[in-house]
Amino acid sequence: MKILIDGMGGDFAPEEIVKGAVKAAAEIEETVVIIGPEKAINDQLRHNRWHGENIEVVDATEVITNHETPAMAVRKKKDSTIVKGMNMLKEGEADVFISGGSTGALLAGGLVVLGRLKGIKRPAIAAWFPRIGKDGNTLLLDCGANVEAKPEYIFQNGLMGSIFVEGITGNSMPVVKLLNVGAEEGKGDELHKEAFNMLKAAGEAEQINFEGNLEGRDIVFGEADVVVTDGFSGNVFLKGSEGMALAIMKQFKSKLTEGIVAKAGAMLAYSKIKEIKDEFDYSDAGGAPILGLKGAVLKIHGNSEATEVYHAIKRAKDYVASDITGMIAEAVEKSAAVIGAKEEIED
Amino acid sequence: MKILIDGMGGDFAPEEIVKGAVKAAAEIEETVVIIGPEKAINDQLRHNRWHGENIEVVDATEVITNHETPAMAVRKKKDSTIVKGMNMLKEGEADVFISGGSTGALLAGGLVVLGRLKGIKRPAIAAWFPRIGKDGNTLLLDCGANVEAKPEYIFQNGLMGSIFVEGITGNSMPVVKLLNVGAEEGKGDELHKEAFNMLKAAGEAEQINFEGNLEGRDIVFGEADVVVTDGFSGNVFLKGSEGMALAIMKQFKSKLTEGIVAKAGAMLAYSKIKEIKDEFDYSDAGGAPILGLKGAVLKIHGNSEATEVYHAIKRAKDYVASDITGMIAEAVEKSAAVIGAKEEIED
Repeated sequence: MKILIDGMGGDFAPEEIVKGAVKAAAEIEETVVIIGPEKAINDQLRHNRWHGENIEVVDATEVITNHETPAMAVRKKKDSTIVKGMNMLKEGEADVFISGGSTGALLAGGLVVLGRLKGIKRPAIAAWFPRIGKDGNTLLLDCGANVEAKPEYIFQNGLMGSIFVEGITGNSMPVVKLLNVGAEEGKGDELHKEAFNMLKAAGEAEQINFEGNLEGRDIVFGEADVVVTDGFSGNVFLKGSEGMALAIMKQFKSKLTEGIVAKAGAMLAYSKIKEIKDEFDYSDAGGAPILGLKGAVLKIHGNSEATEVYHAIKRAKDYVASDITGMIAEAVEKSAAVIGAKEEIED
Repeated sequence: MKILIDGMGGDFAPEEIVKGAVKAAAEIEETVVIIGPEKAINDQLRHNRWHGENIEVVDATEVITNHETPAMAVRKKKDSTIVKGMNMLKEGEADVFISGGSTGALLAGGLVVLGRLKGIKRPAIAAWFPRIGKDGNTLLLDCGANVEAKPEYIFQNGLMGSIFVEGITGNSMPVVKLLNVGAEEGKGDELHKEAFNMLKAAGEAEQINFEGNLEGRDIVFGEADVVVTDGFSGNVFLKGSEGMALAIMKQFKSKLTEGIVAKAGAMLAYSKIKEIKDEFDYSDAGGAPILGLKGAVLKIHGNSEATEVYHAIKRAKDYVASDITGMIAEAVEKSAAVIGAKEEIED
């Protein structure tokens, strides 16, 4: 197995990428391939005193930044880590591609180079959402790949998310719920009502473990393992929650250092506060997939440091070993009846 | 001026409603009318040793609960506080109606009894969102009245929200932004792109102070005074942020009381922690309006205590005094060109 990682993706690349790759490669037998400017990557490998044999370096001279229009950048920068990485996936020179680069470029590159899995209407961007009161994280999708959604996209998000979570966590038949404005059946706009019916049908056919609607406030309490919705509301939910977490942490930090009495208290309570910050942090989530492509792509945060890179490489191994992509292709075929004949003709 | 309040709306009615009404009535000259079962309300007035002259009680024997289907409950319970209250507004027997009852029933009652303001496509449910780094709160709408939205609804939310915030806070030409998946122009689905264009046109005509898109994570940092979107994503944003705030506060509470050292710290830091909780609390926001009805309706939280009731009555006074409803009607007429001729015919 070859695990490919984008040596230039993210704010702390290549330093933290290589550092994380070295740490992971020392623990696994699989080959880690780092793609990026050869000299810079090799310099970092030397800096990390790497003497092992399961890291390879593939040269790529260009980098796509977050400031570029994804579609255009993917077309122009043929020697970028993202485009070249996707091509390696396509040619079978790697089994999974990890990147902390532009999500838009990864999606665009994935669509152009790899293409969609047969039967998949649209690939989706997934994200891990922190939760309390229950181990692990919740997979949320779509987080913005398709802001103009159709019910069948949301339905397929349920299939794909369920298979991914089962493959990665070993949690058999994870609970899938639909993000909606109320928990009762019949809530929401036409888009979510129709998606509900499709998910329900797949649940009745035992293709997924669908347990109905849930409201945004219940996600963080772990009421589902997989939460599906359209790319617009998924994105709004994710960023809204993130803003709130940031704001509260910021206020805690500033208030607890205000005044001498409170400061003394803050010093004592500090270790606990850090624990909470870590709990609502995503660094050990190990990368979230772009699902529905003909290839395994894991996106890590742009601000990833070595620890997240390390976890992502280990997760990537499970991603490939569980043959998640193959299982999604199979599930899509089996569930074609749910979407209905009309849609099949359209496809 | 007569300020009407639902004596049975909310979890702590009638006790906290009457307590708050008594406190507010003692400070203002306007008449506060409490609607509810006469005996229960009068008992509470006695309990609060009310001897003033500007509280009136209007008898209503029924209550619509949160467990009823709003449209059906409104049709059946003619002697409920909500239906009777709306009728009093309609007949001019009150100038504004405050309630902590079912939002759905208030919306349904408002639509059936009062009806929409001329030119308003759909009324919207607004909510105050807490913010840090900037005084006051941000008005968010629509929070769920119309989950199936059209661009013109979102546009009119901008007009209505802007006028309401200006009338209540005195902040002339508040900053209006559109909730979207990115800050740049051209982001989002067709619905939000079209709403953007309408809002932009109204901005250019100086009807509102429209400053473009914003992402969910920026709302809590006070980047806008009025945030508009469709009822689905507004609801998802609001509940998602609420869940995250709840989860973090819960973790702080449990972590800080874990272990003796941390507990000592927590005791010292406790007052600061309470300050933060209050900052992200909505109790002094004083009620959020259902805008676009032929009458002024203020919704307070179902868990409102006397303090929120008190603030809501004071806010209701400003609501009426600024003639917000009249100004909205005028603004809608002026902005008809933005929505376009096609829509006018449809109306």
